[in-house]
Formats: sequence, structure tokens, C-alpha cells
Amino acid sequence: MFYQPGIAQGVLHLDPSESRHCIKVLRKGVGEKIHIVDGTGGFYQAEITNDDPKQCTFKILGADQSTKRNYYVHIAIAPTKNMDRLEWFIEKATEIGVDEVSLVICQNSERRTLKTDRLEKKAIAAMKQCLKAELPEINPALDFKRFIQNVKASHKYIAYVDSENPKTLYGILPPASHSCILIGPEGDFSKEELLSANEQGWTKVSLGPNRLRTETAGLVACHISNLVNS
Amino acid sequence: MFYQPGIAQGVLHLDPSESRHCIKVLRKGVGEKIHIVDGTGGFYQAEITNDDPKQCTFKILGADQSTKRNYYVHIAIAPTKNMDRLEWFIEKATEIGVDEVSLVICQNSERRTLKTDRLEKKAIAAMKQCLKAELPEINPALDFKRFIQNVKASHKYIAYVDSENPKTLYGILPPASHSCILIGPEGDFSKEELLSANEQGWTKVSLGPNRLRTETAGLVACHISNLVNS
Repeated sequence: MFYQPGIAQGVLHLDPSESRHCIKVLRKGVGEKIHIVDGTGGFYQAEITNDDPKQCTFKILGADQSTKRNYYVHIAIAPTKNMDRLEWFIEKATEIGVDEVSLVICQNSERRTLKTDRLEKKAIAAMKQCLKAELPEINPALDFKRFIQNVKASHKYIAYVDSENPKTLYGILPPASHSCILIGPEGDFSKEELLSANEQGWTKVSLGPNRLRTETAGLVACHISNLVNS
Repeated sequence: MFYQPGIAQGVLHLDPSESRHCIKVLRKGVGEKIHIVDGTGGFYQAEITNDDPKQCTFKILGADQSTKRNYYVHIAIAPTKNMDRLEWFIEKATEIGVDEVSLVICQNSERRTLKTDRLEKKAIAAMKQCLKAELPEINPALDFKRFIQNVKASHKYIAYVDSENPKTLYGILPPASHSCILIGPEGDFSKEELLSANEQGWTKVSLGPNRLRTETAGLVACHISNLVNS
């Protein structure tokens, strides 16, 4: 399966890395059939018309659109110090189902900058692996304050466990909603951050009785969001 | 936090690797206080009585026992070809909560042997990280046929998706039960395996609408088992 965005807008060639993979690695030639997904729900059956390893062109034989879900899962997560853990989160969340991922730099974040291109590659690989046609949107890293003010979602939750916070995401997340769940860094959110999130309409929720690592918390939130809609 | 099994049975020293970590790495000395968990729910406050880096001894100052859960989660999983993926599963399942993990060699398993010591180390590290006192039991690899005949659980499920199988684990797993959920290898279960599991009283279940990798399916099953009890 290949990934090529923009087919519905008229793009009829694979990008250089997919072209190379198709022609050089898999040794496909003119007239052979391939399957392509566009990252926005489109599945295509196509036939190779030019087997150029730098720009393989194709014509469309058939197209199908995956059914749009009636809910939207946005996970906002503080990047982990160890990038492998964040990449792992992206892979697993893509498998389980996530529409949008935001990277949020918090006061206690050890990692304050990051590039999203490796994360996008992980998401593309996971999408292909699971035979999906939807690629999650991965937003560039943003400062906590700017993020919480600007995010669009009808239900906004901030994951935080304390004794005065008995609400669980599993208990309160309504099905068929557009939700955003914010997961803190290894050193957790600061009191100031919790307060300002609260002022901006974010609800504190628990993800369960266990202490979880950042990337595990992100995945658990993503899985709960899918389960309440199942 | 240190890990030392057998404290309730009279063991009052750390094993060589924990002793070395305590005395050489963390430079603890006689009279200093440490926290120890025993892997079966016991938390101990202890004081070092001999700071031997090969066998650090201690006396117990206080003990606490974690509350026993009224359900039991046993995940049986075909080892992945890539060991990192299986280790990742162990780490995350320990964080989320699993009582027992079995490794099951199936007809389509690419990996047919494995050592469990690295998995145990991952589980111990995850237990400490999450400040838990319970270590999951990790059973040595067993052939599919022998495994399905001998496992003890009141509810036995085999994860498999087909169009004739609309039951989801989330929909049918009863709370407060002792369950075992079996997850197949990359190439899935064979028809023969599904048939014999069915004859032995295993129920086919789906883990959701998505195609998941083996280790992701294992974790999803583990999380569902905890959620239905939350």
C-alpha cells in the first residue's frame, strides 16, 4: 500500500520516496496495479503508467472513501524526554484511532523543541500497517498557554490525578463528541498551568487508578475515547 | 524504590544487583531509610543495617499491603518477531495493570523460543516506575495446544476478528472475573487453532474495529479488562 496525499485534487504521481520504494524496491512496472491511500480517507486502486523511480505516475481504476466517524479524538501531549516514547505513542494512537495530535510544551517539560517529521513518518507507517486511509494531523509544538487558549473542541479535558478529583475520563466523556485531552510531562503540570486551564474551561479528569508514564497516559486517553464510541 | 521478593518469608537483604544499585550507585549507608516492594503487594519502609554492595541487609520499620483487586487479568500473547515490541507490551501492561502474562507459540509464530528474563526486568522497572508493589507473573513460552488445555480462568477469550464475530471483549467481559485473553501472532491464528480453542471453551471476541499489531492488541485487551472494573 502506498501513501500519496492530494489524489482527489488531481495528484497522479507518487512522491520521490514512495516512487523509489514502488519501482526500485518492489520492482513494479508499467501496467501493474497498486493500492494507494491519501491520508484523508480515500482508498484508490491504480495502474502504473510511468515507472520512473523518481516520479512514478499512475491512473485511477477505482476509488473508495472510508466512513467518517461521528466523533473526533484530539490528544495533546507534552513531548517525552526520550523521543522513542513519543514515536511509540504516535504509532499506537494511529493504530487505535486518533484524528489530531498536538505537542504541548509545559513548564516542567524537559524537552522544549522537537521536529515533527519523524513523527509523521511513524504515523504514515502505522496507517499503512493497519490498512487505514486516515492520517492523524500532527501539529507543531506549542507553548502551554498559547495552546490552551486556541484549541477548538467542544469537550476539553486535562489529565491530572489528585484526591479531590474523582472524575474519570471514562465516566464523563460523552460519545459522538469532539474532544481534546491534554496529557502532562514527566514532572506533571504546574499548579499555575492547572489553574489557567481551569479558567479556560478545561475539566480535570483522571485516567484511572494507576500512575502512568506520559506516553501510556496518552494512549490510554486515546483508547478510552474510542471505546466510549464503540 | 527497591525490589526484593520474600520479605514476608524472612528475606532481609537485597539481591546483588539491587544491593549494588543501592550502595554503589545511590551511595546509601548504614542507618539510611529505603523503600522496598516485594512484588506481591507488600510495601516496606526499611533501614540499612549493613551497606555491603554485594548483600545490603536491612531491618523493617513499617509495612503496608496494597488492596487486592477483585478481578484477575491474564493476557496470553504470541511472542512478536521483534523482541522490543514484546518488551514494550510488558512495560505498558504492568503500568496499566496485569496479573499474569503467558507466552504462547502458535502455528504462525515466527518466533518459537524466547527467554523471559529480559521481560521480567522490564516488568520490575515498570512496577517501580509506577510505584506499584505487584509484579505480574510471566510464564515461560508454551505451545498453543498445551496452553489452551491447561489454563485456569473462569472466562477465556480468543481475540479474532471476522465478519461472523460481532462480540466485542468490551461488550461481554464481566467485571470482577478471572479472565484470560489470548492474542495471536502477526500471521493470526490458524483455522485449526481457532477450532480447537472453541472446542476447549474459548470464546471468540473482537477488540474493536481496527486492525492492530499483536502487542497493541495485547495492551488494548489489558486496558479493557481494567476499564470494565473501574
